[in-house]
Amino acid sequence: MEEVIIDYSQKPEVKNPILIEGLPGVGNVGKLAAEHLIDKLEAVKFADMYSKHFPPQVLVGDDGVVRLVNNEFHLAKAKNDATNDLIILVGDYQGMTPEGQYELAHKILELAQEFGVKKIFTLGGYGLGKMVKAPRVLGATTDQNLVEEMKNFGITFTKGEPGSGIVGASGLLLGLGKLVGIDSVCLMGETSGYFADPKAAQAVLEVLTSILHVTIDFKDLELKAKEIDQMTTRLKDLEESIMESQREDLNYFG
Amino acid sequence: MEEVIIDYSQKPEVKNPILIEGLPGVGNVGKLAAEHLIDKLEAVKFADMYSKHFPPQVLVGDDGVVRLVNNEFHLAKAKNDATNDLIILVGDYQGMTPEGQYELAHKILELAQEFGVKKIFTLGGYGLGKMVKAPRVLGATTDQNLVEEMKNFGITFTKGEPGSGIVGASGLLLGLGKLVGIDSVCLMGETSGYFADPKAAQAVLEVLTSILHVTIDFKDLELKAKEIDQMTTRLKDLEESIMESQREDLNYFG
Amino acid sequence: MEEVIIDYSQKPEVKNPILIEGLPGVGNVGKLAAEHLIDKLEAVKFADMYSKHFPPQVLVGDDGVVRLVNNEFHLAKAKNDATNDLIILVGDYQGMTPEGQYELAHKILELAQEFGVKKIFTLGGYGLGKMVKAPRVLGATTDQNLVEEMKNFGITFTKGEPGSGIVGASGLLLGLGKLVGIDSVCLMGETSGYFADPKAAQAVLEVLTSILHVTIDFKDLELKAKEIDQMTTRLKDLEESIMESQREDLNYFG
Amino acid sequence: MEEVIIDYSQKPEVKNPILIEGLPGVGNVGKLAAEHLIDKLEAVKFADMYSKHFPPQVLVGDDGVVRLVNNEFHLAKAKNDATNDLIILVGDYQGMTPEGQYELAHKILELAQEFGVKKIFTLGGYGLGKMVKAPRVLGATTDQNLVEEMKNFGITFTKGEPGSGIVGASGLLLGLGKLVGIDSVCLMGETSGYFADPKAAQAVLEVLTSILHVTIDFKDLELKAKEIDQMTTRLKDLEESIMESQREDLNYFG
Repeated sequence: MEEVIIDYSQKPEVKNPILIEGLPGVGNVGKLAAEHLIDKLEAVKFADMYSKHFPPQVLVGDDGVVRLVNNEFHLAKAKNDATNDLIILVGDYQGMTPEGQYELAHKILELAQEFGVKKIFTLGGYGLGKMVKAPRVLGATTDQNLVEEMKNFGITFTKGEPGSGIVGASGLLLGLGKLVGIDSVCLMGETSGYFADPKAAQAVLEVLTSILHVTIDFKDLELKAKEIDQMTTRLKDLEESIMESQREDLNYFG
Repeated sequence: MEEVIIDYSQKPEVKNPILIEGLPGVGNVGKLAAEHLIDKLEAVKFADMYSKHFPPQVLVGDDGVVRLVNNEFHLAKAKNDATNDLIILVGDYQGMTPEGQYELAHKILELAQEFGVKKIFTLGGYGLGKMVKAPRVLGATTDQNLVEEMKNFGITFTKGEPGSGIVGASGLLLGLGKLVGIDSVCLMGETSGYFADPKAAQAVLEVLTSILHVTIDFKDLELKAKEIDQMTTRLKDLEESIMESQREDLNYFG
Repeated sequence: MEEVIIDYSQKPEVKNPILIEGLPGVGNVGKLAAEHLIDKLEAVKFADMYSKHFPPQVLVGDDGVVRLVNNEFHLAKAKNDATNDLIILVGDYQGMTPEGQYELAHKILELAQEFGVKKIFTLGGYGLGKMVKAPRVLGATTDQNLVEEMKNFGITFTKGEPGSGIVGASGLLLGLGKLVGIDSVCLMGETSGYFADPKAAQAVLEVLTSILHVTIDFKDLELKAKEIDQMTTRLKDLEESIMESQREDLNYFG
Repeated sequence: MEEVIIDYSQKPEVKNPILIEGLPGVGNVGKLAAEHLIDKLEAVKFADMYSKHFPPQVLVGDDGVVRLVNNEFHLAKAKNDATNDLIILVGDYQGMTPEGQYELAHKILELAQEFGVKKIFTLGGYGLGKMVKAPRVLGATTDQNLVEEMKNFGITFTKGEPGSGIVGASGLLLGLGKLVGIDSVCLMGETSGYFADPKAAQAVLEVLTSILHVTIDFKDLELKAKEIDQMTTRLKDLEESIMESQREDLNYFG
């Protein structure tokens, strides 16, 4: 069978399209951001991507109907001030092997070229391994000019970050995209990486929407962030009360 | 060499065929059920499937003659009330890698399309990790209408079960089958998953034969189930007597 | 690059050829036996087989010249009573993955068919996990008639041995060979499996040469077997003297 | 996508080219040596090699611009006494799987043949697992005459070294190169293997430049070697002072 299958429900007309990728990864930042964008811009799915490089697995919906694990392309037509149609890529998994990652990124870029995509934004998380109060958004691009352009939107470019490079779809789309001449930017929201991180997703989206001249509300993400804040606060309180009681026990014997 | 080889001993004529898959998996429920069906319906093998995605292994029969590990297609012609010829797929192994799983499922569906198969039933176990007295049969389908149809046969569709989806051939045949337009149903018998489970296989077959208007007897499966019940009872008794004697020892020192 | 490369130094004329495979495996029985046969029959190498399914490695000779790891085909022309030319396959490695094993076996069979090979003998060890005084030779074949024929040469066919089938080249050549209609026999010498086992290799060769009407001397193998016997005896003596001295120490304190 | 992509920035004219490979490996000896050679001979990159057999990763430069992980071909035109143009291969990674290693070496040899390369030198380290004062350079070649030729340059050919052969690109280019008739030499600098080893790289380069009639200075490598010497000396001193203070503590209690 083919390495990767693109299954169109409809082949849409697009104008000045920009591709936005948000697949699962560190803190699920990219996925959360892209799904929020699809939701708020009422983007419409126009193609499924299946591949033997995904797990051999179906997911079962609440109605008992199965769906083969996949990646999906959604289209949000330009509205108001925006001048670019957006093709938004989300999905259940990234490729399971290095070769699979390359095959999938290669196919995504073929689709991008077919639709005349001139710019790609890949969204992801930058794992710090500790709690982050106000996540910065780090950037990497295919081009020096793009770096300067992106700095105007508050994106951080720091020497040596990320030190080990960018692994997976968010990196490969830039690397392979550069080879076929597509300007591309990776936006990485700082995150602990301990859980799905809506705060980092919002930070990434605030920058991205400003670049795209798009206005969306962030209430859902803010709500999710608040829930997680409360949860972590409760955990910290619990931890402290346990330590406190232990200290009292020690005093008792002291 | 080819990814997958279908080796026909004969290419049979089939009418209104339904494909039934029962390969090794959780509690070997699918395999036990499909093999019992082949046995009782006196289905006849018409093709072997070999693949480099199976282990590089031959099995040696009691007569000293080898057989390359494979999957097999058997045909049971419709009898009495039944209106569908049945193509029953059994075998030694599933594909050893994700890519192999996809290649094999793809080939099975090619064969299904060639024979005009309009519906697929995949049989499997749903592992609970604890003993099951009266196993339910859970279902998943490619289509909302099929869910409603299947509920009439006592199949359980519960929100969130199976939560992690269906992995392997039983899932892939539904997922890839849906893409080529073949209505498909997965039947999963509840099982501890600790051993080959004839009781779960019987539960699955009772539902399946009722759907197919087929009558078979279950004596062999019932016998196997009884043997396993006795074995587990003996194990439990042994366990209890050991615990009892330990308790007595403790009393002695008490 | 191609999956498997056959590099002929010369394409020989062969009459009634039989293929004999002896690649590394349990107790290196097959490899020892096939190399001894090449040596004693003064077989001449006529082709190398290279593959990306072998390790990415060269071996360095004592003269400083490298050799890419490979498998080799040698030809021993029929002499005296023998009526079959022998194509003998030996090598450094078997394929490193299941897919690789299949690709290599497939290519070997293509070569066998090209040369008109009518029968294949694969040589291997049957690991018992304990020392063996007089190793039996177990057999498995592609055909019931062959089983009967082989029994005349003292080959053992026992129900349930080997229970888990035959894994690797020695099995696959039978399994895939059967599909293309080549009669094949696997000869397995019983071995502890703890070290390269010349005694098991000799047992296999005694049977094989008798089948082939070939006479060779076994001095080299007998010598190697004696060395290993002495080594294991010395180890056992050492072990016993240590245990003895420990017992005396205990008496001293007793 | 293709297994391996060669992306030329320019297709250079070359005269009597020799290919020199220095990819990551034991003690990074080959990579250090080849990069030093590129630097000192002011070699110019003329092609990038990308592959799905490398990790799915981009590296981010200090300027925020990404680069897909790759291997690179550089050209140093012959100067002064030298009669050979040099094609120097360096890179971030070797292939991640055995199959990938073969595919990459195969492609490199295709390029070598296209440019009429008549000789290949592969550079690497020979790990000893202990500190080396004056590293020897061990050799291996595709040809007995080459061994004699190389001995004149002080290269060591010792029976049984390296005992396990040569694994990876440095070995495969010789092994596969031999099959297509390219004379090839592997030069291995002795190294502890504990860290990137500039001293071993210098030893390899001293031999290589003498063979190629090329003169370069080694100041940078000598400096790096001195730094590492100082670091290891400091570590040893620290270790000894700790042991000394422990001995004094023991005396105190003594």
